[in-house]
Amino acid sequence: MNAILLSIGDELASGLTVNTNSAWLAEQLATLGVQTIAHVTVGDHLQSIATAIRQACEQLELDVSPENRGGVLLVTGGLGPTEDDLTRQALADALQQQLVEDPDAMVQIERFFKSIHRPMSPSNRLQALRPHEASILENPSGTAPGLWAKKDRTQIFVMPGVPREMREMFTRAVQPALREILEEVTPDPVVTLVATINTFGMGESQLGEKIKDLMARPQSAATPSTVVGTTVHDGIVSVRIYATGTRLQAEKATEGIRAELRGRLGALIFSEQEEALETAVGKLLLQSRYTVATAESCTGGLLATMLTNVPGSSGYFFRGWVTYANAAKHEELGVPQDVIETHGAVSEATARAMASGARREAKTDFALATTGIAGPEGGSPEKPVGTVWMALASPTGVDARKFIFPGSRQHVRLRAAQMCLAFLRWKLMDVAAPI
Amino acid sequence: MNAILLSIGDELASGLTVNTNSAWLAEQLATLGVQTIAHVTVGDHLQSIATAIRQACEQLELDVSPENRGGVLLVTGGLGPTEDDLTRQALADALQQQLVEDPDAMVQIERFFKSIHRPMSPSNRLQALRPHEASILENPSGTAPGLWAKKDRTQIFVMPGVPREMREMFTRAVQPALREILEEVTPDPVVTLVATINTFGMGESQLGEKIKDLMARPQSAATPSTVVGTTVHDGIVSVRIYATGTRLQAEKATEGIRAELRGRLGALIFSEQEEALETAVGKLLLQSRYTVATAESCTGGLLATMLTNVPGSSGYFFRGWVTYANAAKHEELGVPQDVIETHGAVSEATARAMASGARREAKTDFALATTGIAGPEGGSPEKPVGTVWMALASPTGVDARKFIFPGSRQHVRLRAAQMCLAFLRWKLMDVAAPI
Repeated sequence: MNAILLSIGDELASGLTVNTNSAWLAEQLATLGVQTIAHVTVGDHLQSIATAIRQACEQLELDVSPENRGGVLLVTGGLGPTEDDLTRQALADALQQQLVEDPDAMVQIERFFKSIHRPMSPSNRLQALRPHEASILENPSGTAPGLWAKKDRTQIFVMPGVPREMREMFTRAVQPALREILEEVTPDPVVTLVATINTFGMGESQLGEKIKDLMARPQSAATPSTVVGTTVHDGIVSVRIYATGTRLQAEKATEGIRAELRGRLGALIFSEQEEALETAVGKLLLQSRYTVATAESCTGGLLATMLTNVPGSSGYFFRGWVTYANAAKHEELGVPQDVIETHGAVSEATARAMASGARREAKTDFALATTGIAGPEGGSPEKPVGTVWMALASPTGVDARKFIFPGSRQHVRLRAAQMCLAFLRWKLMDVAAPI
Repeated sequence: MNAILLSIGDELASGLTVNTNSAWLAEQLATLGVQTIAHVTVGDHLQSIATAIRQACEQLELDVSPENRGGVLLVTGGLGPTEDDLTRQALADALQQQLVEDPDAMVQIERFFKSIHRPMSPSNRLQALRPHEASILENPSGTAPGLWAKKDRTQIFVMPGVPREMREMFTRAVQPALREILEEVTPDPVVTLVATINTFGMGESQLGEKIKDLMARPQSAATPSTVVGTTVHDGIVSVRIYATGTRLQAEKATEGIRAELRGRLGALIFSEQEEALETAVGKLLLQSRYTVATAESCTGGLLATMLTNVPGSSGYFFRGWVTYANAAKHEELGVPQDVIETHGAVSEATARAMASGARREAKTDFALATTGIAGPEGGSPEKPVGTVWMALASPTGVDARKFIFPGSRQHVRLRAAQMCLAFLRWKLMDVAAPI
């Protein structure tokens, strides 16, 4: 079954708002076995919306194979109570039906205003209108009911544009309806499941080399099939597994790829549930009852911020220092002045002294330290922008490593803080650093 | 002049990638005076792409008024060297033209591979193909040349899908070409300019009340006209000014609204150049040669991170403490143990003692302190989740304020850190806090 997504709104057409609804809906449809063949966005113009609805239905008809039941058109936006909200009228025009007031919708809207203790304005009455052969979908978190209509063999669902309301309506009303329709057509439909594995420590292209064969696209459309892809977000390289087949086939294929990825990527994988690096580290700290302190120069507090992002982090993190100036490194952490003078603030010796000073002062099991040149100024031929020394003090001694991170000041700082978390994680797992 | 944006790619259609190109292009077109009437996304299927191109051209023809010169279709994606990249062929099909190899494009592709010291693969030869009446657009940052064709009265520009390459090609080749076409049509076209003013301290709806009349949409399409809207991103409320008219009219109208907003919003505005709150504070610190230290509990290092996000922040920030545990507050900042025992860690007295302790230890002009309950656990009826005490120690004494921030742990922490920066800014400007 094929789908087209139609988004309505001047704010989307003009570029003021980036459309995130379509990507979300396309992924949701894929897990049901519905393939999205096009997204269309038009502004708040009656004729454009009606034309877009008609064209989408025509295109979906073209794609229908004889044994198939038809396509799905999901429309979002334009259901508000103002003059600009034209989707109800446009749908009626496209269906060549009259708009009628739906008594149930009226009740729902009145109930919503009661629940938020606000008077209903007369214009909200417009939101109870529907094309006369359409039915309404309840909106538990807003005033605009959704619509469900049929044109030829295409099922049309209309939802609000507000992402929160749209997602709730899709999950509660549209998804079950689609599932029922799909089950009539094929009791065990072909679906695409998406799973994500998060890694840190290796760049996207280097990691891609390790799983190149898995990333090759299947040569035929045979099922079950899997596609593996990578995405990068804030320094975290995520491996995404798309498995297509019956639900059982897809689940089995996902598990197969997961196992293969575990074998090849090992300790680079820090989560198979899309959790953050600091959450994975926090779990290990809580389990082991170890504690950690931070001594930051170039990361300027970001490492402590990440550690304390995690609820319950007060169980393993008690204090940290941001020692930006040399005097602070000396006075707060006991870094000897001659170490800084001889080796410089950005040096292995300073990083080591910061980490062991923080561990001693905070009386923790571990301490992490960073000192580097985040840029854009301050680089030199020997110590270019991006140079970061990190150190990890532990009961068995101090480890130190140098990195030269590319990119902006923000990027260098983020990568440095993440690298500290990754090294602490490998230490807690008692595995050798895989990089 | 009207435009339609067509994006090509399975990764967009399937929802793996959110389409950011379209919003960027729509805004760019608006500043030229071109209105985007629709965005369309289709997957990597030859016939779908060709159909989408034909339909878009038909729709643009419909919208052409007699005195007008035609529309613009901007296509992005599908120009790579693989089997999946079908945009060249689809354009040729839609134009009913043959594909021919362009010798200039061939030279450009060869030159690109030389510049990155890599051999050219045979498949890259495909990228030099163009419909025989089309011309090519140079791609300085990638292998895929763009295309420029005409169908009836519609100008068609095809660009790569990679945002960096697309933006560069648009700016270098498409924008000047469009400007020239537009100038032939109307020497002084009607454009829409966008300006942004960043505020902090008041919620979106409360701020909206202050500028409600400016936010009302114009009742007619007369020019010059202005539309004012608000958006929220990471706690910062931005006021966006859209001014439509000739360039001169739009600039003048923008200035008029700017002046009006300054009068109404005063010190809530921290930037008229889209800069960050910490950058605005950093400028004031550098100008005044004042220095600041941080003592953080609930923000866990985020306040120091924000201050040190700014290049050159080592000129005014030397050290900070993350005193998560009570013992740390006492040992590092000298907060008396009986203050914590009597009033609790989350209290005005503790916040004041943290700020003055940090100012004394760091020998700075100012010090900021936070202590609160970021959640999701740890709230009580007297001190619910979101309760934050902040304090600002200065040469004239210590100010303290309590807030109860809504939202998630991350949101509470961010708002608390931003509020500290805002209060420091108002202090440095010597104005009363506007909230």
